[in-house]
Amino acid sequence: MDLSQAPFETLLAELDFQLHDVLQLEGREEHLPLLEAAISLAAAEFAPHAALLDANEPTFDGARVHLPPTVARTLEAYHDAGFLAAAFPEEEGGLGLPYAISQAMVAAFQAADPSTAAYPFLTAAAANLLRVFGTDDQKRRLMAPMLTGRFFGTMALSEPHAGSSLADLRTRALPQEDGTFHIVGDKMWISGGEHELSETIIHLVLARIPDAPAGVKGISLFAVPRHHLDPDGRPGTRNGVRLIGLNHKMGYRGTVNAALAFGAEEPAVGELIGRPNQGLAAMFHMMNEARIGVGLGASMIGWAGYRTALAYARDRRQGRHPDTNDPASPPRAIIEHADVRRMLMTQKVLVEGGLGLSLFCATLVDDLEGSDPSARQRARTLLGVLTPIAKAWPSEHGPRANDLAIQVLGGAGYARDYPVERYYRDNRLNPIHEGTNGVQAMDLLGRKVMRDEGAGLQLLLGEVGSSVARHRGHHALEELCDGLDAGIRLITEVSEVLSRAAAQGRVRRGLANATEYLHMVGHVLIGWMWLEQAAAALAGDTDFHRGKVQAARFFARYELPRIGRQAALLRRLDDTAMTMPDGGF
Amino acid sequence: MDLSQAPFETLLAELDFQLHDVLQLEGREEHLPLLEAAISLAAAEFAPHAALLDANEPTFDGARVHLPPTVARTLEAYHDAGFLAAAFPEEEGGLGLPYAISQAMVAAFQAADPSTAAYPFLTAAAANLLRVFGTDDQKRRLMAPMLTGRFFGTMALSEPHAGSSLADLRTRALPQEDGTFHIVGDKMWISGGEHELSETIIHLVLARIPDAPAGVKGISLFAVPRHHLDPDGRPGTRNGVRLIGLNHKMGYRGTVNAALAFGAEEPAVGELIGRPNQGLAAMFHMMNEARIGVGLGASMIGWAGYRTALAYARDRRQGRHPDTNDPASPPRAIIEHADVRRMLMTQKVLVEGGLGLSLFCATLVDDLEGSDPSARQRARTLLGVLTPIAKAWPSEHGPRANDLAIQVLGGAGYARDYPVERYYRDNRLNPIHEGTNGVQAMDLLGRKVMRDEGAGLQLLLGEVGSSVARHRGHHALEELCDGLDAGIRLITEVSEVLSRAAAQGRVRRGLANATEYLHMVGHVLIGWMWLEQAAAALAGDTDFHRGKVQAARFFARYELPRIGRQAALLRRLDDTAMTMPDGGF
Repeated sequence: MDLSQAPFETLLAELDFQLHDVLQLEGREEHLPLLEAAISLAAAEFAPHAALLDANEPTFDGARVHLPPTVARTLEAYHDAGFLAAAFPEEEGGLGLPYAISQAMVAAFQAADPSTAAYPFLTAAAANLLRVFGTDDQKRRLMAPMLTGRFFGTMALSEPHAGSSLADLRTRALPQEDGTFHIVGDKMWISGGEHELSETIIHLVLARIPDAPAGVKGISLFAVPRHHLDPDGRPGTRNGVRLIGLNHKMGYRGTVNAALAFGAEEPAVGELIGRPNQGLAAMFHMMNEARIGVGLGASMIGWAGYRTALAYARDRRQGRHPDTNDPASPPRAIIEHADVRRMLMTQKVLVEGGLGLSLFCATLVDDLEGSDPSARQRARTLLGVLTPIAKAWPSEHGPRANDLAIQVLGGAGYARDYPVERYYRDNRLNPIHEGTNGVQAMDLLGRKVMRDEGAGLQLLLGEVGSSVARHRGHHALEELCDGLDAGIRLITEVSEVLSRAAAQGRVRRGLANATEYLHMVGHVLIGWMWLEQAAAALAGDTDFHRGKVQAARFFARYELPRIGRQAALLRRLDDTAMTMPDGGF
Repeated sequence: MDLSQAPFETLLAELDFQLHDVLQLEGREEHLPLLEAAISLAAAEFAPHAALLDANEPTFDGARVHLPPTVARTLEAYHDAGFLAAAFPEEEGGLGLPYAISQAMVAAFQAADPSTAAYPFLTAAAANLLRVFGTDDQKRRLMAPMLTGRFFGTMALSEPHAGSSLADLRTRALPQEDGTFHIVGDKMWISGGEHELSETIIHLVLARIPDAPAGVKGISLFAVPRHHLDPDGRPGTRNGVRLIGLNHKMGYRGTVNAALAFGAEEPAVGELIGRPNQGLAAMFHMMNEARIGVGLGASMIGWAGYRTALAYARDRRQGRHPDTNDPASPPRAIIEHADVRRMLMTQKVLVEGGLGLSLFCATLVDDLEGSDPSARQRARTLLGVLTPIAKAWPSEHGPRANDLAIQVLGGAGYARDYPVERYYRDNRLNPIHEGTNGVQAMDLLGRKVMRDEGAGLQLLLGEVGSSVARHRGHHALEELCDGLDAGIRLITEVSEVLSRAAAQGRVRRGLANATEYLHMVGHVLIGWMWLEQAAAALAGDTDFHRGKVQAARFFARYELPRIGRQAALLRRLDDTAMTMPDGGF
C-alpha cells in the first residue's frame, strides 16, 4: 500500500475551508491555484524523497558536508516556483501574498518533508528579519539573494553552555576600524549551519560588543556570511566560520545541524544588523514568526500521520465487531473498530484544531502590517499572548497525534517501511527548538499574563466569549459553547489567583505550574477554533462538513474536560514538585 | 557527561524497597546479592553496548543474519550467570527463585538494553511453556538446552494478514505418518526469528490441523526447530524454515525481527505441543507472563530515562529563578527549576508506580504455583483482571516518561549522543506487541468485566478498599486515600453501567471506550501502588523515604484526577467517534 500521497488528498479542501470559510479571507479564486501548486510540488518532490533523506543523513568528510542530491533538486523546484518569497512585497522581489496564504503553502511542505523544508523556511525568516532591520544596502547584498535561493540563512543563538538562557551568551563581537566586527565564539544547534546547497550562507549571530550591559540587554545581532562578500554581494573566499561537527538527531535528519566556531583560526567578519545591544529584539521579530511556524509544522506532521493512518485504516482488514464474532464472516476494515475510530478522531481534532490556531495567528501577522491602526494594535496584543501557545500547544499535541497514527498501524507503524514512525521522530523536535515549551509557558504566564497585567489575555478571552455568544442557539454547538464558557471562567479565575500570588511576591510558586497553565489556555483556544470550524461547517451539507461538526463535539467531550484537573492544580498554587527534597528523586 | 550508568545507581535500593518493604517478600538477605549481581551485569555488559547495537542493527546477506559480536558476548555472560533459568525449579535445572525475584532481575536488564535482553526473555518464556505443556521427552530435548542458552526460543503467532486477529490464522499443520507435522505458512513480526546466536532456534508456532474448527478453537501449537534434531536433541541439517526478510524498526533495533516462511521449499517438520486445537490456551500461558513482562520493560525503559534525566538535571547549569533574574548571578542547576522538577516528578510516579504493579503481579504468578489453594484461586482471579492493565498501563505511561526525559535534556535529548532518544524509540514498541493496548482494553472490559461478571474486578477493588481503610489516619496519606475511595466508587458505577449496556445487547457501544476504561482502572491501581509504597516509606526517615511519600502526594494531585474525564465519557456510553460518518474523517 503506497501511503506517501495520503497527506495530500484532501489538503486543498482543508486549507480552503480554514482560510476562506472559517477565517473568511478574501481572494479564494486567486489563492486556490497557488495552494494547489504548493500541494502538488510538496506531493511530487518533497514527500517522495523524505524517507531516503531520513535514511541518509548529512555527513561531514572533514572538508565538506554531503547530502543526498535530491535535496538540492527539490529545493531548486521550490525556489523556481517563487515560493520562498511568497509573502514578501512585490517591490522587494516577492509575490506579495498575505502571510496567511504563504503559511498555508508552507503547511503543505511541512506535511511532506519538514527536514527539507527547514532550509527555505529558515532562509525566509532570515530574509524577513533583514527586510525589517537591515539597511537598504544590506537588503540588496544579503536579503535579495536569499529570496531567489542563491543564499541561505540561519539563526545562531545557542552556545554549548547556553540554550534556553540567552542572558549567558559569551560570543564576542570585536569592532574593527572599517566598521565591521570580528565575531569570536562557539555556536551550537545551528540548523542549516553548513552545506553546499547555496552560494553562501548568511549566519545571523547574537554576540556581545565589549563593555555591553550584562544579560539580554547587551546582545547585538550580526550577519556573518560563510564567504567574504564583495561590495556587489558576490561571495569570494571563505570567512572565518568553521564547522566543529554535525549533531546527529533522532529525527529531522535531513536538516544539517551544526556546531560552529566563529573566529577560531581566522577572523569571522560580520556586520551589525540594526542597533547595538538591540539584537534580541530583532532576533525575536524573526523568532516570533518562527515560533508560530513551529506550531504549524507540528500540526502538519501530525496531519501527515493522521491522513496516513486513515488511509491505512480504510484499507486494512482485521478482526470483527465484538457482537458478531463469527470467524466465518469476513474481517472488517479496521476503521470500523471503535477504538480505531477514537484514535482517528483524536488525531483529527488535535491537528485540524492546531492548524486553525496557526492560520489564525498568521492572519494577525498580516494585520500587523496592515493599514488599520486599531487592527494593528489588536493583532500586536493578541499575538503577544498567542505566540507561546501557538508554538507549544501544537508541538505537544501534534506528536500525540503521531503516536496514535503509529498505534493505528500497529506493527507496521513501528516499521521503517511506513512513514508514521518518521513523523513521530521528526515531530519530537518541535517541543524543544525555538524556545522549549517550558520557556513558552514562562513567557505566557510570567511575562504576558503576570507582568503585562493580562491585557492581552482579557482581549483574547473577550473574543472567545463573543464567538460563543454569536454561535449560541445551534443545537449542534451547545455542548462546546458550554464548555468554552466554563473554560473562560476557569482561566479568568486561575489567572487572577496567579497574578495575585505574583503581586504578593510568590513569583516562583505562581509560576510553578506554568506549563499546565499554558495547556489549559491552549485547550480552550483550540476549542474555540473548533467552534469556529463547526459554525462555518453548518453552512455545508457534505460529509466533510458533517465531520467538522462531529469533530467539534468530540473535542468538547473528550478534550476540553481535561482542563478541570489543571485548573485545580493552578488554583491552589500546587507546589508538590517544588517541595520535593532533592534527594527524594 | 557519561550518563550510561545513571539507571543503575539507585536501582538496588528501589528493588529492595519494593520487594521487601512494600510487598514484604521474605528472604531479603538471599535476594540482595542476586539482585546486585543482575544489576552489575546489566550495568557492565548490557548498557555499554546498547548504543552500538542500536546503530548497527541486524543485517541479512541472503544467507545469514549478522549482529555485532558484542551481542553474543553479552548473552554468554547472562547465561553463564544462570539468570535465564532463575525462576525454574532446581530439579529442572533452574535456580528455584521466586518469579518476583527473577522479574526484579529482569528489570535491571530491561533498563540496560531491552533489545539484547529480548533474546533470553523470549527463550525463558518458551521454556516455561514447554515446562508446563511439554512431554518429559520434549522438556529434555527442547526445554533443557534453552535454560543453558544453547537453544533460543520464539513465539510465532502473527501472519501478514493477521496480527491482532488470531482467529484468522491460516498456517497449516499437515499430520505425517511418523506423528510429526509439516507446517506450511508465513509468519510475521517474529522477534529473534533468525540469528546465529544459538545452536538452534525453537519456534513455537500456531497453526491449524486440517478439519480443525474455524476460529481460535481450531488452533494448535507446534515446536518447529530451525534445525532437525536427532533423538538426543542434537541439531543437524536445516529444517524447512526460511527467512523471508528482516523488519526494520524505529527502535528495539538489536532484536532481530523476521518474516519467516514455513515449508515453502522443503518441509518444515514440527511436533505438537499439548493437545490438538488447544494451542491458544498454551500460547496464552506464555503470553500472559509475556504481557506482564512487557509492562515491566516499559516501566524500566521509563526508569532508565528518568534516572538519566535526573543525573543531567543535577549537573547541567542553565538560567536563574524567575524572582532573581540577575544576569551576574551564577546559573542554577536545572533541577532547581519548577518545570524540570515537575517533569522529573511525573517520570518518577509513572515508572516507580508501574514497576510496583509489575512486581505485584509477579508475586501473584508465584502464588499460582504455591501450595495454598485459596491463594492460588485469588491469584488466578486477580491476574485475569490485572494482566491486560499490567501490560497496557505501563506501556502507555512509560513512553510518556521517556518523552519527558527528552524534554529535560532539551536539544541534547534529541541528539543521538545521549541515550534518552533511544529509550523513547525502544519503548514505543511496548503499546504494540504481545497484543496491542486496544486488544488489552477489549480483553479487560469485554471479557474480564462484562463476560465473567466482574468477579475479578470486585475482588481487586475490595483489596484496594481494604488497603485504603488500613492506611487511613496518616495525615500524609489522606489525600491519596480520598482519591482512591472516589476512584473505587467511579469504577464500580461505570462498570455497572457498561455491564448493563452489554446485557441489553449494546455490546459495541459499551466497548467503544474500552481504552479509556482500562486507563481509568489503571490509574486507580497505580494510585494504590503509591499508597502501599508511601505507607511502607513512613517507617523510614531518609530522603528516599520522604521522596516516596511526596511522590504519592504528587500522584494523588496530578495524576489521579485524570479519571474524572474518563468516567464521564464511559458513564454516558459516549459514541461520538462511532457515529462519525466515514467520509467525515
